[in-house]
Amino acid sequence: MSPRLPVRLALLGCGTVGADVVRLLQSHADDLAARVGAPLELVGIAVRNPAAERDPAVEPALLTTDAAGLVARADVDIVVELIGGIEPARGLLLSALGRGVSVVTANKALLAQDGVTLYEAAAGSGADLYFEASVAGAIPLLRPMRESLAGDRIDRVLGIVNGTCNYVLSRMDATGADFDEALKEATALGYAEADPTADIDGGDAAAKAAILASIAFHTRVTGADVYREGIAEVTAAEISGAQAMGCVVKLLAIAERDVDGLGREGVSVRVHPAMIPHSHPLAGVRDAFNAVFIEAAAAGPLMFYGRGAGGAPTASAVLGDLVVAARNRVSGARGPGESAYADLPLRPIGQSVTSYYVSLDVADKAGVLATVAQVFAAHDVSIRTVRQEGHSDDATLVLVTHTATNAALAATVEDLRGLDTVRAVASVLRVEGG
Amino acid sequence: MSPRLPVRLALLGCGTVGADVVRLLQSHADDLAARVGAPLELVGIAVRNPAAERDPAVEPALLTTDAAGLVARADVDIVVELIGGIEPARGLLLSALGRGVSVVTANKALLAQDGVTLYEAAAGSGADLYFEASVAGAIPLLRPMRESLAGDRIDRVLGIVNGTCNYVLSRMDATGADFDEALKEATALGYAEADPTADIDGGDAAAKAAILASIAFHTRVTGADVYREGIAEVTAAEISGAQAMGCVVKLLAIAERDVDGLGREGVSVRVHPAMIPHSHPLAGVRDAFNAVFIEAAAAGPLMFYGRGAGGAPTASAVLGDLVVAARNRVSGARGPGESAYADLPLRPIGQSVTSYYVSLDVADKAGVLATVAQVFAAHDVSIRTVRQEGHSDDATLVLVTHTATNAALAATVEDLRGLDTVRAVASVLRVEGG
Repeated sequence: MSPRLPVRLALLGCGTVGADVVRLLQSHADDLAARVGAPLELVGIAVRNPAAERDPAVEPALLTTDAAGLVARADVDIVVELIGGIEPARGLLLSALGRGVSVVTANKALLAQDGVTLYEAAAGSGADLYFEASVAGAIPLLRPMRESLAGDRIDRVLGIVNGTCNYVLSRMDATGADFDEALKEATALGYAEADPTADIDGGDAAAKAAILASIAFHTRVTGADVYREGIAEVTAAEISGAQAMGCVVKLLAIAERDVDGLGREGVSVRVHPAMIPHSHPLAGVRDAFNAVFIEAAAAGPLMFYGRGAGGAPTASAVLGDLVVAARNRVSGARGPGESAYADLPLRPIGQSVTSYYVSLDVADKAGVLATVAQVFAAHDVSIRTVRQEGHSDDATLVLVTHTATNAALAATVEDLRGLDTVRAVASVLRVEGG
Repeated sequence: MSPRLPVRLALLGCGTVGADVVRLLQSHADDLAARVGAPLELVGIAVRNPAAERDPAVEPALLTTDAAGLVARADVDIVVELIGGIEPARGLLLSALGRGVSVVTANKALLAQDGVTLYEAAAGSGADLYFEASVAGAIPLLRPMRESLAGDRIDRVLGIVNGTCNYVLSRMDATGADFDEALKEATALGYAEADPTADIDGGDAAAKAAILASIAFHTRVTGADVYREGIAEVTAAEISGAQAMGCVVKLLAIAERDVDGLGREGVSVRVHPAMIPHSHPLAGVRDAFNAVFIEAAAAGPLMFYGRGAGGAPTASAVLGDLVVAARNRVSGARGPGESAYADLPLRPIGQSVTSYYVSLDVADKAGVLATVAQVFAAHDVSIRTVRQEGHSDDATLVLVTHTATNAALAATVEDLRGLDTVRAVASVLRVEGG
């Protein structure tokens, strides 16, 4: 292909992000051509309703309802997929990749469910597959992980990857509001969807955790593999308990590489609320912002921060991928393939290891602490700090453990519930980033 | 080149970073080969003293004192330059690039002084030139700017890029120490060199600002073009003045694109201490850490955080570049070239625009504020807040301005010095990140 010939793009979907992609293609046309080495030409846009009004305006002849027909055109070099969801996106992208047509997609759900099938289709035909916009919106994250850290070893990824949850938890922290109040405010301000279930229950973050873990550890991880707890159970008391400890509560997507007692590597991937100390760089990530903290063996700690959602930020990530894919077309090159070559085993949640904050409602009697401490000791869970608040019938015992497995902590909590002297296990929250 | 043939590397310099590069090449050999598609083979290492003891151990036959001879070998695919400084590095790299040999370098001084000559040599022969390690050590920053944001427009870069200065200012903020005390502590702990001049006076940060501005704005900017003020004049009183305003003092490297009154784009690049509000993501970057905050038109605010120096972090950045350059060799491709195509004019410091914190020692007499306010107004510098501290002969007037040009502020300060009622202009500090 001569550098003078345009690189031809098919756009699938033209909602908020798609419109911003079209806008950037129009307004930055000269600059994009300079960076690619050839102009970018939009040859078709598949939409549900061609009659809908569009901003920016689009030549009507470009619009079609026949996505499959558009993808099958022989003159398409790159497919940009912004439909979302599993089908028809999956079939369309496999058809493009199978014929050597490169793909740029923002499709988190598809990558999280079946990324490896897409990786393999791209590898098979030598096409490029880029999906920076699928995790943490505008933040350049997957490219640095795949390329800049290609000579390093990623040991751990801690991400704040859901803006709705981060907004709700930030408000609870700032105002003392409880979960329902804070969610109501988030909804009123447009930070939460009318039905925020997939955000609040950790499902969205779990899909992103799966994609991050796949890239970090070259291992097949799907959204369904990710253990998750949402934020609906986080109480105002836990938020203030965290503050008393110099911590803040965040919903974290965590992917860790570890080595078991027999020297075998494995991967733990999970999503849950956790306390992190104020000194941790993630603690200052407020409101609807996203950030991903990476620990690499040689580079040390790294953090990437920015907007995780929105039309223009997501379009920026799509355009970045598009420029690279188009430049590869022009030069006849291809980007780094992704694969699950390392194929590390996934640890069940019971084997995941962290510290815990445990708050107990107890009667303030002599010997309560000794009894409680014995239960922790019986499960080999070592206590780092204990603090008692209140007196007589209203006492609260706040314990923070050293690292322990989730299984050991769960067994400890079950036994604590059986004690006469413990009225209730008021909170169990993980402590991360220490 | 068949994918099975090794990619052959020449290493120039084998100090702290070089040793860590050799270590990673040895310990990650299989993983690197998987990512590159071919093994990496070190064919020679140019050093000053081949007899020196080395960790990790290196085959003695690889060592040579003849760097030029090593670079000229016909079997070298990629030169990794870790000598630093201008010559002989410049001549060696131009010789390699001129013959189509790709270059990975950590050489901040050379890139800042003469980056465009290197860009042009690489473009002329089709070789790759990567230099991620030259700014902000381990932090993947230049690749995201060049590739992930290739479809966006960078408007502003604010960086904490000198670990020594950030450590000193962090200690002053945390302990109330003055500059000399904090520097002494930094030296004792190894965060400052025996001769810290190039760090303290902003020279190191200016070189990095030049590289960042070149990449962000596709414009030739050298270290000598960068206006700079160091941190030696920052007082404990300014640190506590910043705290009283909810701010922290940081040494910032700033590169901004702006549009003048006639609609002409230009670039302002400068390094100086500045107050930034605690709510700004850069405010939490403490001790020897680095971070770069980028404002892009579509992506919005982004921040990249990590270690800015040290053998292993820098080696991680070098290896990331090396993997990409080697993969390009294997596939016959090349990376994105860099150029100064936009060629925007550089604004003199007088035209740079920001807010200012001005602290005046005044006599607490009726009419002082009116007189002072008149001077600001005469130069069209608008006042945002005024606070008076103390009484009678010891009063201090603290003013924060709206944005104004550096020239207008300088003229204002000169006139303030001429007032009878103003005993001294105690502080003038820029306020950024608002």
